[in-house]
Amino acid sequence: MSRDVIAFDLGGTNVRCGLVSEDGKILVRAKHAVGKKPKPEDAAAQMAEMAKKLLKEANKRHDEVACAGIGSPGPLNSQTGIIVETPNLGWKNVPLAKLVQDGIGIPTYLENDANSACWGEYMRGAGKGTQTMFILTLGTGVGGGLILGGKLWKGIDDIAGHLGHIVVDPDGPKQVFDNPGSLEALCSATALIRDAKAAAKEHPKSKLAKLAEDEVNGQTVAECAEAGDKVALDLFERLGRHLGIACASFANVLNPEAGVIGGGLAASWKLFAPAMQKEMKRRALGPAGARLKLHQAKLGDDAGMTGVAGLALLRLDGKL
Amino acid sequence: MSRDVIAFDLGGTNVRCGLVSEDGKILVRAKHAVGKKPKPEDAAAQMAEMAKKLLKEANKRHDEVACAGIGSPGPLNSQTGIIVETPNLGWKNVPLAKLVQDGIGIPTYLENDANSACWGEYMRGAGKGTQTMFILTLGTGVGGGLILGGKLWKGIDDIAGHLGHIVVDPDGPKQVFDNPGSLEALCSATALIRDAKAAAKEHPKSKLAKLAEDEVNGQTVAECAEAGDKVALDLFERLGRHLGIACASFANVLNPEAGVIGGGLAASWKLFAPAMQKEMKRRALGPAGARLKLHQAKLGDDAGMTGVAGLALLRLDGKL
Repeated sequence: MSRDVIAFDLGGTNVRCGLVSEDGKILVRAKHAVGKKPKPEDAAAQMAEMAKKLLKEANKRHDEVACAGIGSPGPLNSQTGIIVETPNLGWKNVPLAKLVQDGIGIPTYLENDANSACWGEYMRGAGKGTQTMFILTLGTGVGGGLILGGKLWKGIDDIAGHLGHIVVDPDGPKQVFDNPGSLEALCSATALIRDAKAAAKEHPKSKLAKLAEDEVNGQTVAECAEAGDKVALDLFERLGRHLGIACASFANVLNPEAGVIGGGLAASWKLFAPAMQKEMKRRALGPAGARLKLHQAKLGDDAGMTGVAGLALLRLDGKL
Repeated sequence: MSRDVIAFDLGGTNVRCGLVSEDGKILVRAKHAVGKKPKPEDAAAQMAEMAKKLLKEANKRHDEVACAGIGSPGPLNSQTGIIVETPNLGWKNVPLAKLVQDGIGIPTYLENDANSACWGEYMRGAGKGTQTMFILTLGTGVGGGLILGGKLWKGIDDIAGHLGHIVVDPDGPKQVFDNPGSLEALCSATALIRDAKAAAKEHPKSKLAKLAEDEVNGQTVAECAEAGDKVALDLFERLGRHLGIACASFANVLNPEAGVIGGGLAASWKLFAPAMQKEMKRRALGPAGARLKLHQAKLGDDAGMTGVAGLALLRLDGKL
């Protein structure tokens, strides 16, 4: 009999929910829009409703459902199950794990979304078979997660693994807080769009410059690059170089086996990976650089649900 | 009855040796010059001679000597006890642990010198009482060590903890290998001397410019700064800022409790620490920056012997 888990992946637009087997297979899925700035109680009630349908499915399969896990953007406290703040949802100090647990009646755990995705790729994705790896998710920001010797590394205050906040170029631009030239400020989709708009102005004859202001996004810039636009190609090459600098730092400090690049921009892997690999190898100590394999993430949007299910079981078993 | 350890600290000029108690106290000391490019067999025989005298001392104290530990510059393989290369001694692929063990007849383990110093400061120095800390030793290069959750983190290939090779400013100068702007290339004594010579040329009226070329070293530059020379003060301020950038990256990625700054330049703590603290706090995520306390190393040259003794006992007990 499989020990299943109800897994939630809470985003700014949708909450996705899945019945996940102990080995990380998503057996049944559900998805629901979260309203704009929903009340936490309403969102939790909606999540409990989704879960109840999946509990019925599990019942049909004669599966036990051991617990639930919620992957959420942070900052959050995974020990207390409280979301400290999610700007996208407008929440502050929301005890989401408890609210959902009260609705579904099984132990419910909260985890950071990037840590969840990291654990998912480790269990079943591009990091499978390794013991020490990291993930970088290139989206609005750059999320990160770190697994050391088979364990999710959370640090002293549950705040480790913010790999997007490593400094790559101290004289670079800043994004959200006063840490100029962080990986996030250079390699997020937000950063790519900022740089693409600036490059379009500088190169009015480029394909890039033909996009309307509001059409500039990760996908359209990639399309320009794929069509051979030098300006767009250079943007991805620079993004790869910056990623490679960060990956070399991780190699020299942590000597991991794998680095997994996920998030929306990872779809443009071919455009940035060569520069990333080259810069990482150049700057990493020989054996550390030879060991570190950089991979495109495999699980896409499923990484979060897969991972948070695995982490919830570890929490239930007192192993995390 | 104390389980003592024979600890060696192998440097380019001297080999230091101590009888160290289980809790890291150095009970008896010895020191011997290593000749210029000595034969490994001769150096090992000399080390065994030193050890035998300390074994007699232990005998007088009725102490058991459980094992020996050698802290050495690398690269080296701590599992096989082989020094891969030490440019200072001119050695390649030397099975030093075995050579010394054959001479003294007790289990002998080899560890990286920076990891040894890190473990020493963790056991009895500035990192005492923490579970997660790092060390940076500012000398000819910048050495590093990393303790995560009470365990020395060595990575997959025994090559983790090279914190001196984190990238701080990718457009910066390079030192030994092709990793421009690494912490080592910016914050080692070698880097300080390079920058001081350049600054002296630029500012011929500075106190710094009055030093003869061969007088420029960490200590004399510090003396200029302490005497109020603005040019020298700026050099230390910049060194502090670069250290702070690296420490912020460690805070955001690893969320440690303590960072310990050792090595020769740490004597100039007051000259660089304010800028280091300020830059770290600026760039670290709030709770990670608030948690990370940066300290001057406490054990000086004893850190290596203290630490390698502790690590050797862990090796003997199968705990490392």
